[in-house]
Amino acid sequence: MPITRAQLEALDRDDPLRLFRDRFVLPDGVIYLDGNSLGAMPKAIPARVRSLVEEEWGKDLIRSWNTHGWIDLQARVGEKIGHIIGAREGETVVCDSTTVNVFKAVSAALALHPERKVVLSERSNFPTDLYAVESLIRSLGKGHKLELFEPREFPDAIDENTACVLLTHVSYRTGRMYDMHAITKTAHEKGALTVWDLCHSAGAMPLDLAGANYDFAVGCGYKFLNGGPGAPAFIAVARKHQKLAMPAISGWFGHASPFAFESSYKPADGIACWAVGTPPILSLAALEVGVDLALEASLDACRAKSLRQFEVFDHLVAQELRGHGFTLVSPSNPAERGSQICYAHEHGWPIMQCLIAQNVIGDFRAPDIDRFGFTPLYLGFAELWDAVQVLRRIMEERLWDAPQFHARAKVT
Amino acid sequence: MPITRAQLEALDRDDPLRLFRDRFVLPDGVIYLDGNSLGAMPKAIPARVRSLVEEEWGKDLIRSWNTHGWIDLQARVGEKIGHIIGAREGETVVCDSTTVNVFKAVSAALALHPERKVVLSERSNFPTDLYAVESLIRSLGKGHKLELFEPREFPDAIDENTACVLLTHVSYRTGRMYDMHAITKTAHEKGALTVWDLCHSAGAMPLDLAGANYDFAVGCGYKFLNGGPGAPAFIAVARKHQKLAMPAISGWFGHASPFAFESSYKPADGIACWAVGTPPILSLAALEVGVDLALEASLDACRAKSLRQFEVFDHLVAQELRGHGFTLVSPSNPAERGSQICYAHEHGWPIMQCLIAQNVIGDFRAPDIDRFGFTPLYLGFAELWDAVQVLRRIMEERLWDAPQFHARAKVT
Repeated sequence: MPITRAQLEALDRDDPLRLFRDRFVLPDGVIYLDGNSLGAMPKAIPARVRSLVEEEWGKDLIRSWNTHGWIDLQARVGEKIGHIIGAREGETVVCDSTTVNVFKAVSAALALHPERKVVLSERSNFPTDLYAVESLIRSLGKGHKLELFEPREFPDAIDENTACVLLTHVSYRTGRMYDMHAITKTAHEKGALTVWDLCHSAGAMPLDLAGANYDFAVGCGYKFLNGGPGAPAFIAVARKHQKLAMPAISGWFGHASPFAFESSYKPADGIACWAVGTPPILSLAALEVGVDLALEASLDACRAKSLRQFEVFDHLVAQELRGHGFTLVSPSNPAERGSQICYAHEHGWPIMQCLIAQNVIGDFRAPDIDRFGFTPLYLGFAELWDAVQVLRRIMEERLWDAPQFHARAKVT
Repeated sequence: MPITRAQLEALDRDDPLRLFRDRFVLPDGVIYLDGNSLGAMPKAIPARVRSLVEEEWGKDLIRSWNTHGWIDLQARVGEKIGHIIGAREGETVVCDSTTVNVFKAVSAALALHPERKVVLSERSNFPTDLYAVESLIRSLGKGHKLELFEPREFPDAIDENTACVLLTHVSYRTGRMYDMHAITKTAHEKGALTVWDLCHSAGAMPLDLAGANYDFAVGCGYKFLNGGPGAPAFIAVARKHQKLAMPAISGWFGHASPFAFESSYKPADGIACWAVGTPPILSLAALEVGVDLALEASLDACRAKSLRQFEVFDHLVAQELRGHGFTLVSPSNPAERGSQICYAHEHGWPIMQCLIAQNVIGDFRAPDIDRFGFTPLYLGFAELWDAVQVLRRIMEERLWDAPQFHARAKVT
C-alpha cells in the first residue's frame, strides 16, 4: 500500500508530541533532518541568553556565581540529564567535552582493573572516542591495547583480558543500537567494566542506565538535548564506583571546598569530583534550556514517534526512489535502531549537498553515507513526504551532478 | 603630600585608555575591582550573542559550522590571544579549561623528559594547577613528584632533577609577578621545561612568550580578556616543541581531517592538534568579542595605568586607612607586580562582604586576603578614591561587624 501525504498529515494531527514543535525555532521552508548533529534552537534560548549576559554577567558581574547560582549549574543540569538517561540521583554531572569525559571514564575503568590491559571498542565507533583512548594509552605507557571489532562481534569479543568496553549506544554512522543491558551483563560476567557513549541516544529515547547496571556513561548536550553548538558534555558514574574511581584529571571545580584554596586535592563527595575546571557558563545555561524541554516530553512518546518516522521514511524511499541506488545501512529491526536512518549511495556527497541547497538538511558521513535524523520533538511526518519528494526530483533530474555539489566542505 | 580626588579626576581626563570604558557595561554606582576574577561585559556582547543564537544557530543551524566559520573559531581566537601574549604565529589555540590545559601541557613536558621525575611549582599557586598535576602524577603512576616552594626560592629550586617548572606568572593571591625570562632561562640551563599559567596577566600587560623562549603556556579567557563567565581557555606550545610534544588527550577537533572519520588519530599540523573535543561555541564567540577589544588597546598603556593605579590605591590606603589593620601583601617593587593589590586583614572576609554590599566589588581569598583588581580598560582613578572612602567609613563605623557579613558564601 503506498503511503500518501494525507496519511502523514493525519499522523501529525494525532502526534502526542505535536505541541513541542512550536517550542523550537525552525526556519521557514527548511526540513531539518540533522538534529542528531546539532539540535534545533528552543524558542526560549534568546531570552535566557539575553538575561544571562545582560542581567547576570553585565549587571551582577562576579556576584552571579552565588546570586544566580552559576556555581550549581553543572550539578543541577547534570542531575536533570541523569533523569533523562536513567541514572540514579547523584550520578551525573555536566563538564568538559565528550572526548575529555571518555578519557576520564576509560582512565578510571583502567585504574579499577590494573591487571587487565585491553580496551574493546567498535571499529566504526565515533572516532573521537577512539582518539581519546589512543592518547590515554600512549600517556599511560603501560602496555594497554585498544582492540576494535565489528558490532556483530559483541558481546562475544569480551573476555577475561578485557578491562573496559567502550561503545557508543547508537552508532553515528548507521544508527545501529546496541543492547546496553545484555552487553553490560556479559562484560560484568567476564569481569570487565563498561563505558557507554550516549551522544546519539540521550534525549531521543528512554534510557535505563541504572537498570542496565552501568559503570560509566558520557554524552554530549548538542544533539537530542538541543543545548546549542558545542554544548558542554556530561559524565555519569555509577554509585558503586564513586568511592574508588577517581577522575584522571582533577580540578578546583571538583574539589571538596574549592574556595578554601587548599594546595592538595580533596575530592568532592560523589559525582561532584568529576567536574574539573571553570565551566563555560553561557553554553551551560543554554544547555539547561534544551534539557528542560526534553524533561517535559515523554521519552516513550519520542521513541515511538522516531521508530514510526524511520518506517515511514524507509517506506517512502522504497516507494518513491526505487532504482536510484540508495542502500539502507541502518538495521531493519526496530530494537536495533536509534533515531536516524542512513543510506549508502555512491554519489552520497553531492546528493546531500544538493538536498541541503534545497533546504532539506541531513548530512553526509564518509565514505558514502547520507544520514537523516529524526528528532521527535520537532519533526513532522508530512515533512518526511516533502523531503523524499525533493530527493526524488534531485535524483530524477540528476540535479546533484553539478560542480558546486561536488566541492568538499570543511565540515560535513 | 596627600592625594586629592581632583588630582585623580585629572588623571582620568588624561588617561589614554579613557575611551575604552564606554565600550563596557558597568552598572551605575558600582566600583568594580574584580575584573581579575570576572572581566566586565563588553557592550558588544549582547548583539554578538543574539546574532549567534538567533541567526547562526536558530536559522542556519548545522550549516553554520561552515558558513559562519564556527570550525575556525578555536584557531582564530587562539591566534588573536597569541598576539596578546607574545607567542609566535601558529602557537596558540583556544580549547578546554585552564585546568585541562595545565594537564595537557605538564603531561607533554614530562613526556619530553622521561628520565626526570620532578614537577616544581609554588605552594600558593592557584590550586587547580596543582590539582591537575597531582591527578596527572597519580594517573601516570611512574613515580613523579610535585615539589612546592615559596616564590623567593625560584629560580634556585630548579635543578638537574626538574622535568618541568609550572608557575603562574602573576599570583592570584598576592599579585606577585615572576620574572618569566629569568626563570625560563634558568630552567633551560638546568635542562628543565616551563609551563606558564597566564590567567592573571594575559590582557593586563604586554607579554613576550617568544622573547622569553617559553615552552608551554596556558590561561583563561574570563579575566583580563573579558570573555565572559567560564570562557574557554587557551594553550600555547612553542614551535620548537610542536614536532615532538603530543597532547595527553587527543580528540577529533585536533585531528588532521576530523571529517574523514578515520579510526586512528593523526594529529593536525602545528598547534591545531592541541584542540580536543567540540568547543562550546556560545562561550567561544563571546570570548572573541573580549579578545578583539583587548587587541585594540595598547598593552603598554594598560600596564602603565595599572601600575599607577596600584600606587594610587596603596597611597590612599596609607592616607585614609592608617591604623585600620590592612597589611599590604603585594610586592612594592613595580617590576614584581601584576594588576591587583592585596591586603591581609584579620577581618578580611566580613570587610569585603560589607564593601560588596556597598557596591565596591573586590574579593576575598582565604585565609585573610582582600583583593582589589585593576582592569585598565574600564577602571578610573577617581573610582579608587571613592572605593577607599567607602572602605574608610566601613572601618570607622565598624559596619563590617554585622551578622550578615560574617556568613560564608559558596563562592568567594
